[in-house]
Amino acid sequence: MRSNSKNFQVSSDDGANKSYTEFKSTSMPGRVDEFQSFRQKMNDRILGADNRAIKRFFGVDTLTYEPGKLDARTKEMLGLATSMVLRCDDCISYHILQCKELGVTDEEMFEVFSVALTVGGSIVIPHLRRGVAFLDELNERPSKG
Amino acid sequence: MRSNSKNFQVSSDDGANKSYTEFKSTSMPGRVDEFQSFRQKMNDRILGADNRAIKRFFGVDTLTYEPGKLDARTKEMLGLATSMVLRCDDCISYHILQCKELGVTDEEMFEVFSVALTVGGSIVIPHLRRGVAFLDELNERPSKG
Amino acid sequence: MRSNSKNFQVSSDDGANKSYTEFKSTSMPGRVDEFQSFRQKMNDRILGADNRAIKRFFGVDTLTYEPGKLDARTKEMLGLATSMVLRCDDCISYHILQCKELGVTDEEMFEVFSVALTVGGSIVIPHLRRGVAFLDELNERPSKG
Amino acid sequence: MRSNSKNFQVSSDDGANKSYTEFKSTSMPGRVDEFQSFRQKMNDRILGADNRAIKRFFGVDTLTYEPGKLDARTKEMLGLATSMVLRCDDCISYHILQCKELGVTDEEMFEVFSVALTVGGSIVIPHLRRGVAFLDELNERPSKG
Amino acid sequence: MRSNSKNFQVSSDDGANKSYTEFKSTSMPGRVDEFQSFRQKMNDRILGADNRAIKRFFGVDTLTYEPGKLDARTKEMLGLATSMVLRCDDCISYHILQCKELGVTDEEMFEVFSVALTVGGSIVIPHLRRGVAFLDELNERPSKG
Amino acid sequence: MRSNSKNFQVSSDDGANKSYTEFKSTSMPGRVDEFQSFRQKMNDRILGADNRAIKRFFGVDTLTYEPGKLDARTKEMLGLATSMVLRCDDCISYHILQCKELGVTDEEMFEVFSVALTVGGSIVIPHLRRGVAFLDELNERPSKG
Repeated sequence: MRSNSKNFQVSSDDGANKSYTEFKSTSMPGRVDEFQSFRQKMNDRILGADNRAIKRFFGVDTLTYEPGKLDARTKEMLGLATSMVLRCDDCISYHILQCKELGVTDEEMFEVFSVALTVGGSIVIPHLRRGVAFLDELNERPSKG
Repeated sequence: MRSNSKNFQVSSDDGANKSYTEFKSTSMPGRVDEFQSFRQKMNDRILGADNRAIKRFFGVDTLTYEPGKLDARTKEMLGLATSMVLRCDDCISYHILQCKELGVTDEEMFEVFSVALTVGGSIVIPHLRRGVAFLDELNERPSKG
Repeated sequence: MRSNSKNFQVSSDDGANKSYTEFKSTSMPGRVDEFQSFRQKMNDRILGADNRAIKRFFGVDTLTYEPGKLDARTKEMLGLATSMVLRCDDCISYHILQCKELGVTDEEMFEVFSVALTVGGSIVIPHLRRGVAFLDELNERPSKG
Repeated sequence: MRSNSKNFQVSSDDGANKSYTEFKSTSMPGRVDEFQSFRQKMNDRILGADNRAIKRFFGVDTLTYEPGKLDARTKEMLGLATSMVLRCDDCISYHILQCKELGVTDEEMFEVFSVALTVGGSIVIPHLRRGVAFLDELNERPSKG
Repeated sequence: MRSNSKNFQVSSDDGANKSYTEFKSTSMPGRVDEFQSFRQKMNDRILGADNRAIKRFFGVDTLTYEPGKLDARTKEMLGLATSMVLRCDDCISYHILQCKELGVTDEEMFEVFSVALTVGGSIVIPHLRRGVAFLDELNERPSKG
Repeated sequence: MRSNSKNFQVSSDDGANKSYTEFKSTSMPGRVDEFQSFRQKMNDRILGADNRAIKRFFGVDTLTYEPGKLDARTKEMLGLATSMVLRCDDCISYHILQCKELGVTDEEMFEVFSVALTVGGSIVIPHLRRGVAFLDELNERPSKG
């Protein structure tokens, strides 16, 4: 999808790339890797089932985040904020990954979080904690370069 | 409730039968068994607390899925689709179990998933992944006959 | 999309066809007609804005309800139940229209409602009332033949 | 259900009593009366359809708010707070009516609102405005004595 | 809050400024004006009730959208996208107003809509229609200069 | 915040105190302790990030539950019921802890659960099971005295 994100991208026709770590501990080591391997496995499984509407939905999902009048950075922040108010941990993790890839700083990320918290209420807080824990794990990984 | 589903049913007055595997890994072995044992244990605990409104709610839940003008198969598919748009992993697991018992094929199940995905949006995808992983584990179990 | 529904369909590339009557009184005359004219007007406006992702989403929406392993009738009932638990009056109205077109009886419709009510809780009741009022207005219209 | 609320109660087997004013202007005169007449009409219609699960659900709904270990006042405040975070205007109106009947003061009501606002976020604000407008109309009605 | 938006702002300590037009027809003339007058009236009423937690929540709401590491434009787009996936018509109207004030173009706005539609699903469509109708009314108003 | 709850309270400026056990097994030993340590760690991390809007939101959250016209007990029950209909396991755990601290009996707690179940529907049941399992673990802990 975007050249600088290929180490997180599984397949070119999958824009969603959300995964199963929603119910895994954010503090256990290797969450980011687990995120990526389960995502790849289940994406392949689902797209292999050959349901046309589902496959086309995944295509629309990819298309949605491609830069247009708004750049990819802004779109990923929109994806992050909407995921947070809808309280989907996997979606939050995915968009944090994408935002990091596109150079969104931690301070900017926290401003996205603040909008989500105010709009969505205290019910968002547990997701905020897990999102920040995921971000911290990501920041502590050795450089990918 | 239905004769061919007794190996998944815990007690006759419990139509919900949702369980705690929502936050357990879908890839770990034995998820289906764990689903059933925790469900039974907590159902017994909750109904034993003797709160009349809760007990009657469980009764209505059972009644809702009994065949009427619509057959049980259709009703379980309705239960599956609504659980998916409301993004409740345990409810999804339960209705996948029921659909399998009633002979809904995997291809039909994926069409139910496609309606839920389109109606509910990409936020549904993580639940779709976990639902399909649960379905796969179920398909890989040795025949119950 | 389907030959017998053309009097409710606005354009062939719009499967959603939800409209603005969500906030209009269910008891006022002409709600069904208003539903259709606002829907057509706004569909044309939105698709005319030429946003690729939105246009393709509308295409997926249409595709989702096309008969496959499940017939159109079952799919529309799935659309109705999911709309009701998500509490979207316009979506409910649209799927009631489609269900009627496809021969779903009122008694069957009420069984769909009962699943939505049990799954979604008492919070669904106001939407059930408006949905039934819409169904009644539809039933009272002179035959389209 | 409760003797002092009979002027707002339509029928003894209807605990929900939510109505269609969700989409009507809170500022127009007679909203409270309209609330009650539409509610009664649609309750009769729905219960007359004779769907067993729906009828029993309505029964559970009534039972839920009957005084037990918690008094009716506390239960109605719980109903009000949950309705507000789920953003159901009709449900909010109904529980405001019940709270007023049971002597909950405006100041207490605002504390219920504050919990709902903090838990549910700024998305609750439009419902708070309409709820307060409904409360004000109720307070301005001539005494029922 | 921002100098060029004072004709839409009611009071400096109210960042939410959502109003009651959620349930009013988007096609009727004067929706924008009605939006502003009801908002002002009810804001004054609610803040006058002197509940500390509610007042401080309104303060946080204002603070959230003030420019920081992200500019006001980006924050308003985040507010718009989150409002749309949470399906709050008044919140959508408010953030469309703010986005227009800050120079967000219609094409950019549609890209925000496309993210909300993909993330939130077809259930978002009725709100998209009303949002676009509101935007169109806004565009047709005589220049405020 | 309240003197008798200091063993569960982490810091005085954190009213939310929700934690990450949402995705951990309710049956594993030590869930209550894990709840508290992750909560403290992530609260410190988030508040240390020094985002003003987020910090002030946490302050409002604390303020909301302070006794006023309604006592702390009633407010915590409101927090519990709203958390349950919004289906947030961590929030449910937190408010069960607070309710226990304030002397809410198990029977009263089940009446709060019954309101949440009726209002929110069967989709609430998995959260009810996990909430009751958490309550049971709490009841089995050796006395803190």
